[in-house]
Amino acid sequence: MATAAALLLLFWISPSARGFSLPLQRPGDCGDERYFDISRLSCGPCGAHQRRSASGSSCVCLPGYRMVSNNGGSSVICEKCPENMSGVTQDGWNCITCPKGMTSEGKCKCLSNEILVERGVDGVLLNEALCIVCNGSPQSFSASDVLGSRCVRCEQTFINVSMSCDCSSPNILVSRGTLIALKFRKMKSCVEKYKCFHFKISFLFQSGGLCFSARESLPPKGIATVRFGQVGVTLTSAWFLKNLEASASACWLYSNLTACQALGNMCVMNMNSLSSSSTDACSLFQYIYANTARLGIVHSIAFWRHNLPWLYYGDQPGLASKVLETNHLPTIFSFKGRSEDVKLQFIAASYDAAGNFLKWQSLEGGLLQLCPDTQNKLNAAYVFGTTYEQSCKISIAKILLDFSNPVFYDLFFEYNGDNGQQYLWAVPVLNLNLQYSEMYVNQGSNMNNWLLTRRFFLVDTLSGRENDLGKLPRIIRVASKITISIRLVSHTQKGTIYPPLITVAYTDVLVQNPDTQSVMVSFSVRYEMNQSEAQIQTDITLGVLGGLAVLWSLLRTAGWKRRTGSSVIDLQTVFKFFLFYAGDLANVFFIITVGTGIYWLVFFKAQQFVSVLLPLPSQEKAFVTYVACAFSLKALQFLQLLVSQLTVDIFFIDWERPKGRVLKAVEGEGDVKSAAAPVSIWRTYFIANEWNEMQTVRKINPLFQVLAVLFFLEVVGFSNLALMDSSSSLTRSSESYIAPWSRILRFGVSVALWLAIAFLQIIFFAVFYERFVEDKLSQFVDLCCVSNISVFLLSHSCFGYYIHGRSVHGHADTNMEEMNMNLKREAENLCSQRGLLPNTDGQTFQISISRKMRLQYDRIHETLTRRRGPARFLDSSANTFEQSTRAYNTMNKFLSSFIDHVHKDMDYIVKDKLLLERILGMEFMEPIEKSIFYNDF
Amino acid sequence: MATAAALLLLFWISPSARGFSLPLQRPGDCGDERYFDISRLSCGPCGAHQRRSASGSSCVCLPGYRMVSNNGGSSVICEKCPENMSGVTQDGWNCITCPKGMTSEGKCKCLSNEILVERGVDGVLLNEALCIVCNGSPQSFSASDVLGSRCVRCEQTFINVSMSCDCSSPNILVSRGTLIALKFRKMKSCVEKYKCFHFKISFLFQSGGLCFSARESLPPKGIATVRFGQVGVTLTSAWFLKNLEASASACWLYSNLTACQALGNMCVMNMNSLSSSSTDACSLFQYIYANTARLGIVHSIAFWRHNLPWLYYGDQPGLASKVLETNHLPTIFSFKGRSEDVKLQFIAASYDAAGNFLKWQSLEGGLLQLCPDTQNKLNAAYVFGTTYEQSCKISIAKILLDFSNPVFYDLFFEYNGDNGQQYLWAVPVLNLNLQYSEMYVNQGSNMNNWLLTRRFFLVDTLSGRENDLGKLPRIIRVASKITISIRLVSHTQKGTIYPPLITVAYTDVLVQNPDTQSVMVSFSVRYEMNQSEAQIQTDITLGVLGGLAVLWSLLRTAGWKRRTGSSVIDLQTVFKFFLFYAGDLANVFFIITVGTGIYWLVFFKAQQFVSVLLPLPSQEKAFVTYVACAFSLKALQFLQLLVSQLTVDIFFIDWERPKGRVLKAVEGEGDVKSAAAPVSIWRTYFIANEWNEMQTVRKINPLFQVLAVLFFLEVVGFSNLALMDSSSSLTRSSESYIAPWSRILRFGVSVALWLAIAFLQIIFFAVFYERFVEDKLSQFVDLCCVSNISVFLLSHSCFGYYIHGRSVHGHADTNMEEMNMNLKREAENLCSQRGLLPNTDGQTFQISISRKMRLQYDRIHETLTRRRGPARFLDSSANTFEQSTRAYNTMNKFLSSFIDHVHKDMDYIVKDKLLLERILGMEFMEPIEKSIFYNDF
Repeated sequence: MATAAALLLLFWISPSARGFSLPLQRPGDCGDERYFDISRLSCGPCGAHQRRSASGSSCVCLPGYRMVSNNGGSSVICEKCPENMSGVTQDGWNCITCPKGMTSEGKCKCLSNEILVERGVDGVLLNEALCIVCNGSPQSFSASDVLGSRCVRCEQTFINVSMSCDCSSPNILVSRGTLIALKFRKMKSCVEKYKCFHFKISFLFQSGGLCFSARESLPPKGIATVRFGQVGVTLTSAWFLKNLEASASACWLYSNLTACQALGNMCVMNMNSLSSSSTDACSLFQYIYANTARLGIVHSIAFWRHNLPWLYYGDQPGLASKVLETNHLPTIFSFKGRSEDVKLQFIAASYDAAGNFLKWQSLEGGLLQLCPDTQNKLNAAYVFGTTYEQSCKISIAKILLDFSNPVFYDLFFEYNGDNGQQYLWAVPVLNLNLQYSEMYVNQGSNMNNWLLTRRFFLVDTLSGRENDLGKLPRIIRVASKITISIRLVSHTQKGTIYPPLITVAYTDVLVQNPDTQSVMVSFSVRYEMNQSEAQIQTDITLGVLGGLAVLWSLLRTAGWKRRTGSSVIDLQTVFKFFLFYAGDLANVFFIITVGTGIYWLVFFKAQQFVSVLLPLPSQEKAFVTYVACAFSLKALQFLQLLVSQLTVDIFFIDWERPKGRVLKAVEGEGDVKSAAAPVSIWRTYFIANEWNEMQTVRKINPLFQVLAVLFFLEVVGFSNLALMDSSSSLTRSSESYIAPWSRILRFGVSVALWLAIAFLQIIFFAVFYERFVEDKLSQFVDLCCVSNISVFLLSHSCFGYYIHGRSVHGHADTNMEEMNMNLKREAENLCSQRGLLPNTDGQTFQISISRKMRLQYDRIHETLTRRRGPARFLDSSANTFEQSTRAYNTMNKFLSSFIDHVHKDMDYIVKDKLLLERILGMEFMEPIEKSIFYNDF
Repeated sequence: MATAAALLLLFWISPSARGFSLPLQRPGDCGDERYFDISRLSCGPCGAHQRRSASGSSCVCLPGYRMVSNNGGSSVICEKCPENMSGVTQDGWNCITCPKGMTSEGKCKCLSNEILVERGVDGVLLNEALCIVCNGSPQSFSASDVLGSRCVRCEQTFINVSMSCDCSSPNILVSRGTLIALKFRKMKSCVEKYKCFHFKISFLFQSGGLCFSARESLPPKGIATVRFGQVGVTLTSAWFLKNLEASASACWLYSNLTACQALGNMCVMNMNSLSSSSTDACSLFQYIYANTARLGIVHSIAFWRHNLPWLYYGDQPGLASKVLETNHLPTIFSFKGRSEDVKLQFIAASYDAAGNFLKWQSLEGGLLQLCPDTQNKLNAAYVFGTTYEQSCKISIAKILLDFSNPVFYDLFFEYNGDNGQQYLWAVPVLNLNLQYSEMYVNQGSNMNNWLLTRRFFLVDTLSGRENDLGKLPRIIRVASKITISIRLVSHTQKGTIYPPLITVAYTDVLVQNPDTQSVMVSFSVRYEMNQSEAQIQTDITLGVLGGLAVLWSLLRTAGWKRRTGSSVIDLQTVFKFFLFYAGDLANVFFIITVGTGIYWLVFFKAQQFVSVLLPLPSQEKAFVTYVACAFSLKALQFLQLLVSQLTVDIFFIDWERPKGRVLKAVEGEGDVKSAAAPVSIWRTYFIANEWNEMQTVRKINPLFQVLAVLFFLEVVGFSNLALMDSSSSLTRSSESYIAPWSRILRFGVSVALWLAIAFLQIIFFAVFYERFVEDKLSQFVDLCCVSNISVFLLSHSCFGYYIHGRSVHGHADTNMEEMNMNLKREAENLCSQRGLLPNTDGQTFQISISRKMRLQYDRIHETLTRRRGPARFLDSSANTFEQSTRAYNTMNKFLSSFIDHVHKDMDYIVKDKLLLERILGMEFMEPIEKSIFYNDF
């Protein structure tokens, strides 16, 4: 044999590669005369006397022609049958005489109760086909099968009732159809310009019937209409029509398990709605339920009748809360630990529409999650503590393809018993579409009105089919919103939970154009606990701190009154009180929100055995309000701070005295005149400038602060701590599910980081920077002292601050040489100390001045402002300059003499503040006679 | 009938709600004696003479017993058959005598070529079953069917060859099996502690054979081994064993289309590998291909032989590039426009393993995307211009469940012809696992060696089955990496592309524990164009700008040499040149990267008819290098800037002269002595302090800059512009696919935003802030003038800056009154102008001093530094003070006399700089005799 390499040389080498293009032809485009060549991917002609086969990819002989040879595709040879044998056998290879006519395909046909026989028992081909009626007599009990090709034993109920294979009157024949396979296949075989879609539906529907004796008591006749409330359509369902009565009867008479399940499923398709007006599936179920009490219950569960599916919990008021909150599951959950402790193990018993049990299915792998996602992310829904949310839009076309057969689920929670045996706990379903006496009882929040049920489905494409099960449904019903609620037992320290609740909301969709229609579906798992206690504690804290804030504001107002030196309670005082109160209340709100945020952050994320769960978004409202309050009140306080900072009086006292008199040659004359040497104003300018710059000194660097917080949140990954899951890791892999954010946790993480970094910065500035690099404030005090200038500042009428900057050398307004000498002398401790009092170092004071002193101050100040105010014209500027210079000099003289104890009636004393005064930030003593200087370090 | 509401009263009301708990039992746990009650969900006992049915959910009679009644579940009644009729009919309802023994279920059985007959043709039950041999004689040609229950016409090849239904020697019987349905179902029925998994496999395998005459020339006998190279396993595949020979023979002899496709599929399962050593599926295919040249080609495509699937493009060298780059598709793509222009419309012909054509399938809806996602996101892969990447881990269990039957795809690109007809363009496949003469020719980057193929599959779970098709496969093969490459035609202005290429890499997985095993799969669509032109242009720009940078650096070095006043080229000069060059080169790199980034941003995102595509990540390497170069060179330059700023000489010239002599009372004596009034040093302190602060003034606010850039990037959504898709919108919906980032676009967006915001800030500062709020620099000049102090700054030896601050009033060291007076006089224009030259305003100058002047400066400076340097002890501090004060006075005197043109040998002239000088930042004139002051605004 030639080798493969040699064979390859036989490839026909194209001289010039031309396009690799061909027209698109679909099997449906070929028409009846041509077949679809699966090798060429285009249509080809069928031979003589042939036409396209049903699948389209081969040719078959025309009616009246038999196959002579068939090699697939179009290589079929046909031959006309002789006149006397014009029929063709079912396999198409032989001609045969048909006794009772032919089908359009040219095959023989018989009556509906007959079978067609073309070969003898041993395979010998008959010349003439036979139509035979099956022998239905006792012992044989045979009837034709579904395809009409064999006699098989007929339905047992027929035999039971009539001892034959027919169900003649007075016996009652009840139709029954079993859907064996139903599958949509999407085909698109239309030309571009037509908006078109169609589905090929292949299904095998075994039709038949059950026979019931007229003597037996049948259940009431059910009605086969289904109401789709959301789209306002009531239709007669083909499925209900075929199966409702048969299922009810078989369940009632024979306790047939599958029939009972099928009846139950029909009730579920009816939304478990209980209505007194009609005998729908649920009414029939209830009828049978009520009348089979004698059969007893299953597994000691009162609502689970023998042979019947468990559909309802009872309907007595308040039962729902009993079911949901009386017992708790024996499983203990933790956030960290073995996989059994952190997994919610749900398992569902699944049934098909006809009532057959399919299998036990774990919810893992996305059984209930309609939105597609990776296994990892789908399974994250069942990790304890992970709030899970998933939602997407799904096209109706995809739903029809994927959910051609409805599946019904009974959901259980799986746990391990003491003996190693696995147990199940039934999970109740809250069907929001359930109607009880025409009322949507489950949509309210009042748990006592709820009617819990058991069984649910994801998609129902069956009940919405009218007339023909083989057609597209007119309406489908989709479980568009599924929520599993896990509720923690209050006061538990070890993570016990109440039985989970699954809430299902269905959406009815009128199928019009499946390709463009879509439906929004969502699946979520949420964790709840009773937050009323936390709420109460927050309220108490708010009350206590709010009360304290009132006291504190009163104190501050009193202090402010003392400092302004007035004592009447006027409107301004009340206004000021409210401003103080706003600031304090802002602090209270801030403390509470930060406390709450950090509390949840620490207690939720750090717990191993679960004792707290995060508040739901609806429970966070109070928190958001608090944050808003804190923010707006703080803004108010800042406004007030700004205003009060703008109204500060500040004066720089220059201690410098003229060094002597200057001899000056008077211009024009030869005289030498002496005048007081002017004191340079530049030192005052310098101090004023430095003071101005000191206003903007901060303990934190805002650029660093913002960048550091962003760095820790986004790069290091602290933001991941705000996810509503049980992990306290700072990283999440890209493959894992990312839970939604919790607003409280976000606030907690951000504020904690901000505060921590701000605190570190302050520590850094206080401990390192101010000590080893520079301390602006003490530098300023030094500068004052070196430049022989004191700062006298009145923030309130009678309260302010004083920096004593009198040079210990007497003069500072001098040249560099002398300055250096002075500094050197000080360095060598040859001077007195800098303090205001002899032999002290205290240079900074809080001052509380007497009203008399203030009056004097105001009087001098007035000369400046009064003249200046109304007459701000250019021509009066000379006057103004003079005025202000005079005022400056007067004030300088007055204040320096005040500091020097010159005015006996406006003297002051220096003392330390009491500890309490310092803490409260107010002064107890009123400066009636003498002003008071408090040491302030 | 009672109403439903009334019926509900019959619910049995539980007095105390107890738990809703039951033990978990699975159908598999019940054992043979019990059945699984689908209503109670637990096991129940079967009745007498019964055992569990195959499905487990009902009971059936034991062998030898017939059913008397059956209502499902356990309500079955059995009755023992009489001794003489110990067998039971197939339906289980009757007893019958078996002629040739019974099966283990108690049913009759016959020999393999016989059929079992229990009823007559008309349904009459026989007392004794019959075993009948089918009549295989001509005319009837019947043989038993698969189930052995009927005689049907036997296989046509048997009749062709032997004119009967047996294929006795010398004819050759070739086995053939057709997989009708194969389905895995996952079942978990094991107790917790056992690690267990197992799959239930339901399949229908129609076994049979073909008969060939010995006279006919059959193709060579194929070998049924499959080699899985990655796991190093070669196994005999059950599928190949059953079908390879039959398919090859049927294809060869009868040109059977399905058989040819099946053979082709087997070749594809063998990775299309061509080897000369064995007659595997591909060799057989090549044999038939080579020997059927007479049948002609299809659709004028040279490689597509009639009746055969098109598997290979030819193997001549260089064909791949011809196929890929000779023609371009007729479709015109755009980024914005009608959906036909922006969608890549791929369509695939799908076949099953047995060779049946399934249907045409659009790739939309995630046909090739193994990772689950929403339809929206999956379909985003086929939006033109969207770089698409998807990857995830899929568990082997899920793959086994979803892909039990392999599907084979022939991929085409769909486009509209002129006549409204839709055309297809064949998409070539690059199979990375293909071996050609034992070499992986497709893994190299040399396109000339590539061997393109056509057909591919996603998952092959079939060829890895050994011995029994009903068992789990030993090895599966997964298309783990699928890449569709769209290549733009160079120089196109209207978005034409070459034929797409799909690259497939397969991974072999040894199936050991499907539940824990997983495989990483990825799917991507990437867009390429020939970037060599862009690269060349960048290189040219780099070369040109780099050359200019050398020139510029030389100029700057020359300027620097001039300024330092030296003229020898020493090591320092060379070093300085390289530092300048580093800085200039950094700018060049920065300009190029910014230009590139903004170029791609604008040209890629803004185009409608596509003419450029983004570089692939591998093509971005040069760009990243450039950015790194720019960054590191700039860092070097900054270091140099810092050093040069630290070595600046600065001196504040105090113009103030003593106002006169001060009369001083000499202590101890009554005398009055006169001394020169000291000039206050405070003005100099003030100016020095302000100068210090001016060092950190910036034209942009860094906090605002960072926050604004972050705001625009993240909040406004400019970052979305860096996504590799065709949209230029700033927002993306959460439901839409988010394309990967492009590094170039990210750089482009960030830098563009940063520069734009910095530019706006500078504009704001220059136009608004400096004009209306404050201009620090002119404030400083004013201050100098008011304080009667000039700033003399030497940044280089012979170059520096000078701010002329001589007060127009002669004196500034005075009190507030006089200061105010002075200012007022100036406001009223009563003084001369402030400039250095009379009647000018020019106060700021660049100065270029002569070497003589510099020498003098150094001499004075030396007295300060020399004394200070070596003797920095405390005891000498007095001396030091004195020295420095003296040096200060000398310098002050010297510099002020220099400015006052006192030294005739060190005079200076004032002139304007030439425009070119200003642009180049250097001086053309050397200050040999006189220093030169250039006006500097």
